Amino acid sequence: MDISNSVGKSNVLSKRGLRIMNDSSILEIGMLKCQTNGYSDANPSGVINAGTAENTISNDIIAEKLSQVKSPYLDDPDILKYKDFTGITTFKNTLCSFLTKYANAHEQLNPDNLVILNGCGSCIAALTIVLCDPGDAWLIPTPYYNAINTDSNRLPLVNLVHVDLTSQESQETGQPFQLTVDKLEDALDQATVKGINIRGLFIMNPHNPLGDIYSKQLMKECLQFAKRHKLHVIMDEIYMLSMFDEETKFTSVLSLDDLPDPDMTHFIWGFSKDFSMSGLRCGAIYSWNKQVVAALGGVAYWFAVPTAMQFTLDRMLSDEEWVGQTYLPTNRKRLRDSYDVMSKGLTKLGIPHLVRSAGLYIWADFREFVSPLTFEAELEMFYELIDAGVYIPAGQCFYCQEPGWFRIIFALPNHIQQLVLQRIDKVISKRRKFNLRCPVGDGENK
Amino acid sequence: MDISNSVGKSNVLSKRGLRIMNDSSILEIGMLKCQTNGYSDANPSGVINAGTAENTISNDIIAEKLSQVKSPYLDDPDILKYKDFTGITTFKNTLCSFLTKYANAHEQLNPDNLVILNGCGSCIAALTIVLCDPGDAWLIPTPYYNAINTDSNRLPLVNLVHVDLTSQESQETGQPFQLTVDKLEDALDQATVKGINIRGLFIMNPHNPLGDIYSKQLMKECLQFAKRHKLHVIMDEIYMLSMFDEETKFTSVLSLDDLPDPDMTHFIWGFSKDFSMSGLRCGAIYSWNKQVVAALGGVAYWFAVPTAMQFTLDRMLSDEEWVGQTYLPTNRKRLRDSYDVMSKGLTKLGIPHLVRSAGLYIWADFREFVSPLTFEAELEMFYELIDAGVYIPAGQCFYCQEPGWFRIIFALPNHIQQLVLQRIDKVISKRRKFNLRCPVGDGENK
Repeated sequence: MDISNSVGKSNVLSKRGLRIMNDSSILEIGMLKCQTNGYSDANPSGVINAGTAENTISNDIIAEKLSQVKSPYLDDPDILKYKDFTGITTFKNTLCSFLTKYANAHEQLNPDNLVILNGCGSCIAALTIVLCDPGDAWLIPTPYYNAINTDSNRLPLVNLVHVDLTSQESQETGQPFQLTVDKLEDALDQATVKGINIRGLFIMNPHNPLGDIYSKQLMKECLQFAKRHKLHVIMDEIYMLSMFDEETKFTSVLSLDDLPDPDMTHFIWGFSKDFSMSGLRCGAIYSWNKQVVAALGGVAYWFAVPTAMQFTLDRMLSDEEWVGQTYLPTNRKRLRDSYDVMSKGLTKLGIPHLVRSAGLYIWADFREFVSPLTFEAELEMFYELIDAGVYIPAGQCFYCQEPGWFRIIFALPNHIQQLVLQRIDKVISKRRKFNLRCPVGDGENK
Repeated sequence: MDISNSVGKSNVLSKRGLRIMNDSSILEIGMLKCQTNGYSDANPSGVINAGTAENTISNDIIAEKLSQVKSPYLDDPDILKYKDFTGITTFKNTLCSFLTKYANAHEQLNPDNLVILNGCGSCIAALTIVLCDPGDAWLIPTPYYNAINTDSNRLPLVNLVHVDLTSQESQETGQPFQLTVDKLEDALDQATVKGINIRGLFIMNPHNPLGDIYSKQLMKECLQFAKRHKLHVIMDEIYMLSMFDEETKFTSVLSLDDLPDPDMTHFIWGFSKDFSMSGLRCGAIYSWNKQVVAALGGVAYWFAVPTAMQFTLDRMLSDEEWVGQTYLPTNRKRLRDSYDVMSKGLTKLGIPHLVRSAGLYIWADFREFVSPLTFEAELEMFYELIDAGVYIPAGQCFYCQEPGWFRIIFALPNHIQQLVLQRIDKVISKRRKFNLRCPVGDGENK
């Protein structure tokens, strides 16, 4: 949105205000398209949102549950008052029990170590504020979920230093975009030479957008690397329960009995993804460091979850049978089925992609259709897909260092998935023809 | 809370994290006392909270209303998804109609100028972030509600430059602590000499803790002062409807038809005080400046109000008859009655205080009982009051430049008010005796 000339004064906003105003990410542009001209029964040619990582195939179960548990709370005058802004005691206890069970925690989690805030974005912002000064930086492997950048930067004024992973397949795992400690060491060295103060390492497990799950071995190596260099580690496990393959083993950082440096290790989880409720804004930080917890208490006021919401979520989680026997297995099955539809559909279209079993998305290789293979051409394809009625963010949104990759959300109703595949097909079919006529050399000249 | 030695590493927190951890205001200490050893039927000797500005005499009406309107929304899967983080359209429309009516707005408010965030504290923080860079400052008359300091500083890293008002009665109004434009000019001059970048003026109307209502004339002079110096004005009118005297005329900044500089004027209001729901966390900014609104959109994600809450509040406000015929008049009458009880009680105890007709609090003059008349002795009395079972914050919490003043919340049930008065009486009676034995000179030597 260009409104820079809408007022006469150039110094109405602060420098950071101007930066924030002009910092529209491609994800935000896509979301806006889906808001202003979104697909619906009434607007079938509107843009389908296959770009925002929301689970819209299980929220009927949640909505039904919430409609049952909300009643006794909103009419209690006490919920209208200020409470402990880091979360009410009863909800902290319930959430600790839940995380202890489902993260297979090494020991019963302590509610005194838990801080509940309005979404994982706020958890990242709050942790960044208390652990970093303006100008400091986190190390983070690319590609990564781009909002970690805005979470760290817009309020906290902290930067991300990239550890670039490549599509070249690892000799060890046979997979592309694999993290190694050597790459972390290199990135830290280079940042240090540049005088950047690296305060820690940011890890997503399961990973967004790759869908990778870190092996216990690799996770430990990362934690040891951090300890060696006196770095914090933020372990963002927001997709912990969005796993849909019983065979795949997931190791939460909470489950380790020999954490290299508990004082510098901080865990994040939230309801947005695993419980299909991004609109409810609730996440949590678990930290073993009492100073960190106390400092988070000093910023929790601005990121507090309304007491009524906490009571509602508390009631929902407290129904352990519903969580363990109904919601989670149903959600897992639906994710599995949806994944299969999208994965098979992409295969049929001839689009290679990572085969994973976690998250709500598939990391897909469109390099064949991006010509020339540049970020500009990738962006062009992004807009062409939007014009064809489907929003899927390009790899550059995730700071992928190689053009040609896209992330596609599969956690969508089946008929929507079919439309997504059709609209993608329309774009790539045209491009296939175009590529046959115009080899790369020509494309570069246009 | 001193936990600085609880971990071995001194650099676990950032510099700002350490500052946040150690920045416990007296208000927070008081609230903590009321949380850990609070007064209740089961704990009658616990500390009564007459210090947190909450309206606990009308929240029964709100709770009843909320219990009626919540039903149709929480079971709608759509509310579980991300929405426009600056507020959903329907709620923006409703809130604009409401503010247009009750602020007696000069023209129908435009929903495009409205940004809804999780509480007025977040509104202040967000505005400060987009209007100021770290190290910049707001001008603010003292005494003032101390959280404006933390709202401006903890996340935004912006400072407040004080315009100190004195208890000496104004020749013009006959009242103490009166703001004049000369004082603003002086404070701005002094700050400029010191190299401080003043970005704007912060005004609360009705004022907290004084209960003052600005005359239209004074407000315009302040706005003209700001325009002259190219400063923003934040007009915080969070107590706009907590007025309990039909005779008193209140002029909202929204009602002015000749606003000196609309592009630099920003209005704040929220539900916490006027609708007795501080725990629900909902406030709003109205700004005529499209750049400011756009930049606020860039930080709204971290301060978003859950969609379900917005629907609930929307339904509540949409019942115009209930708002205009039931809630507001009942609340006004209850505030009037409670004010009278506290004011008469203080008079009976011989405690002078400002006679006002807005807010939830009374600014009271305890100078007779603070001996010597220093901030140290004031703090001592603050703790003595807590030991006697009542938390009322001392003037230094509000950066009052003269010791001896306290703010007392009167919006409490009658039997609690009586206890507050009894416990205050206990402390001042002891002090009266002490003062008779030890005149000021002696006191200074102890």
